[in-house]
This record gives sequence, C-alpha cells and structure tokens, in this order.
Amino acid sequence: MSGMFITFEGPEGAGKTTVIRKVYEEMERQGYAVMATREPGGIDIAEQIREVILNENNTKMDAKTEALLYAAARRQHLAEKVEPALQRGDTVLCDRFVDSSLAYQGYARGLGIEEVKSINEFAINGTMPQMTIYFSITPEEGLKRINANQGREKNRLDLETLNFHQRVREGYELLIAQSPERFRVVDASRPIQDVFEEVLQLIQDTLKKNQI
Amino acid sequence: MSGMFITFEGPEGAGKTTVIRKVYEEMERQGYAVMATREPGGIDIAEQIREVILNENNTKMDAKTEALLYAAARRQHLAEKVEPALQRGDTVLCDRFVDSSLAYQGYARGLGIEEVKSINEFAINGTMPQMTIYFSITPEEGLKRINANQGREKNRLDLETLNFHQRVREGYELLIAQSPERFRVVDASRPIQDVFEEVLQLIQDTLKKNQI
Repeated sequence: MSGMFITFEGPEGAGKTTVIRKVYEEMERQGYAVMATREPGGIDIAEQIREVILNENNTKMDAKTEALLYAAARRQHLAEKVEPALQRGDTVLCDRFVDSSLAYQGYARGLGIEEVKSINEFAINGTMPQMTIYFSITPEEGLKRINANQGREKNRLDLETLNFHQRVREGYELLIAQSPERFRVVDASRPIQDVFEEVLQLIQDTLKKNQI
Repeated sequence: MSGMFITFEGPEGAGKTTVIRKVYEEMERQGYAVMATREPGGIDIAEQIREVILNENNTKMDAKTEALLYAAARRQHLAEKVEPALQRGDTVLCDRFVDSSLAYQGYARGLGIEEVKSINEFAINGTMPQMTIYFSITPEEGLKRINANQGREKNRLDLETLNFHQRVREGYELLIAQSPERFRVVDASRPIQDVFEEVLQLIQDTLKKNQI
C-alpha cells in the first residue's frame, strides 16, 4: 500500500502555504495519516543545498547550476522524507515540486521545459504526484498580496519583475495543458477560507475514490 | 578562435595531478597560453557545492543527489572558469570531467551511464573536451601508490574497496570504446617522468595539428 502524493503549485502570494497548513490540520483532526512538507523540508543535506541556492552573495550563479541544485535538493527530500511517508501509507501534501522547476527555470528563465524535465526525471526516479493542485491567480494580484504582507520574508523570486511572473503563469498553463488528468485548477483569488474548503473537498473526494 | 580543451581521467593514484602540474609548468615556460584546473577550481559556488558532497556527516546522501551535485559544480566551474579561458584561446588542462561521473557514478555505483550522461549533457551544454588523456593503471597499483603516499589527504573514494575500483576501470574501458577518437590511453604504471614526457608530446602534437 502506498499513500497518495499531492503537490501544490502556483505563483508566490497565491496562498498555497496557508491552505496547506489548514488542510493538514483539518485532515489530522479527522484522523487521516497525513504529512505536509516542502523542499528542503528540514532534511539536512537538502537544507545545505538550499543555502547555496539562496545565498545572496552567489550573484554569479548560472541558471543551469541553479536548476541542478534544485533537482539535487528535491532528490534528497524525496528519498529521505516523502518516499518513506508514502511507503507508510501517508497522504503527502507537498508545497511545490517538479512543476515549479519546469515553470520557473524551464519556461520563465528560458532553459527549456524538456531540458529541465530531463534532470528532474533523473531526480525523482518515477515518483510523480497523483494529483497537483494549481492555485490560479494573476501575477498582479499575487504580487499585491506579497507586498501587503509585511511579515513575509522576501526572497530573490519576490523581487523579480511582473513580466517574469507572467511568463511563470504561461509556463504553468502549458504544463496543465500537457497533463490535464493530473492537475486540478482552483481559483485562488477568492477568500482563503473558500479556497481551503474547495481543496479539502478535492483531496477527500480523491482519497475516497482511490479507496474503492 | 577557441582554445583546446583537454581532460585527464583515470583512477586515484595514477599520477594525474603530478603530471598535469609538470605539463602546465613546461608549457608555460615554453610560452603557451595554458591553464590547469580541476573542479571546483576555486570557484566559490562550486566550492560550496563540493563542501556539501564531501561533508563526512552527510552519510545519508543519496547516490542521485551526489551525481546532481557533481553536475552542478561542473556547470559552475565550466561557466566561470573554463569557458572564459577557452574563449581567450587558452589551452585548458582539466583534472577529471564528465567521464569521471560516468565511470564512478554511472557505471561503478550503478546509476547507469546513460542516465548520468543526461544530467551532464544539461550541465556542460555542448562544451566537450577535444582530447581526453586516460591514465591506465591497475586498481592494485593505484591503491598501493595511494597508501604509500602518507601525506595525501584521504577522501571517501580512497576508502572504497578494490572491487569498486575494478568497476571504475571497467566503466572507463566502456567509455573509451564508445569514443576512441577522443581518448588517448597512456600507461601510467611507468615512472612519472616517462608519463609526463609522453603526455606533453601528445598535447603539443595535437596543438600543432590543430594550428595547420
């Protein structure tokens, strides 16, 4: 028996992190075996890799180096944390996964979706999510929310231009068109409570279907 | 005009590092524009990546994570150091490159030569060496030299079994068979001065041919 692997995708400011936390808490309250995580997820080696990626002094980092480092952190997080949880039968909720690399590095930064896919296929070794929930929100709305949230830690991506975020959105739209059976698109411009309820319902319906 | 890119491959203890230093010094003395390097090569980002790979506390490192990290360090070293030197027209002597990953991770550790090649093709983006000099020595002889050299810093690979080194040799032999036009095999069991003279001759002959 293997648990269900669910990933969450979308731009910064779409509310993914908040919704995942609420879904996790509610599912745990209802007695589901559930785990919520995101790369590097407290995995020591993956944290060390992420430090190299996010180190603000590393201004000379090549885009391909960055993509390889994301793939390396992904591999280690998957091997040490996600795969053992799935093998225990847990439902795993993962904040960003392969599609983020394809949309951000592959499409928006122009490395090529197929090229970035090749290194990620090596990294994930067949462990793809059964369901990916895409938080749909315009770049303008997402950036407005990020800027309104003063407490939020800014990272390099938050500082990119609106134009870049528009390309990220186009990248995701291509990926959704390529795998419509895996993606569920939710309108993330609504109040967070509404988004949470829809996502919880989606997940519980899918878990019920898979049980039968 | 682009300089010639020459890589050196073979097991630990074959004398690569010493021979490269001597070739470099002699070529520089004769007025060649030449650079000698090895990954991570003093490139800050690549050094940070290598620290993660070689950190002895990282005992849980997955073999695929390691291969992705080597590819990332390679990419950065290439982009910051090797490619600019080649563009200046320098001859670049590089101690280990793609073939090391293919022989060690791909073949000896069993990840698959083709799979490791796919992430390295992403990393090197077409910058392959024009010539690769393979230092041929039996695993027994290589390990004997390593053990005799008390001053040498031991790393994880030195501690591997003879059986592993035998598989590394087989991996290299497969690669040589796949690209006989690129490889030059030198008998590294001879005195270091003889090996040095042969390697210097090989390089200078090839540079002359390329000039015409």
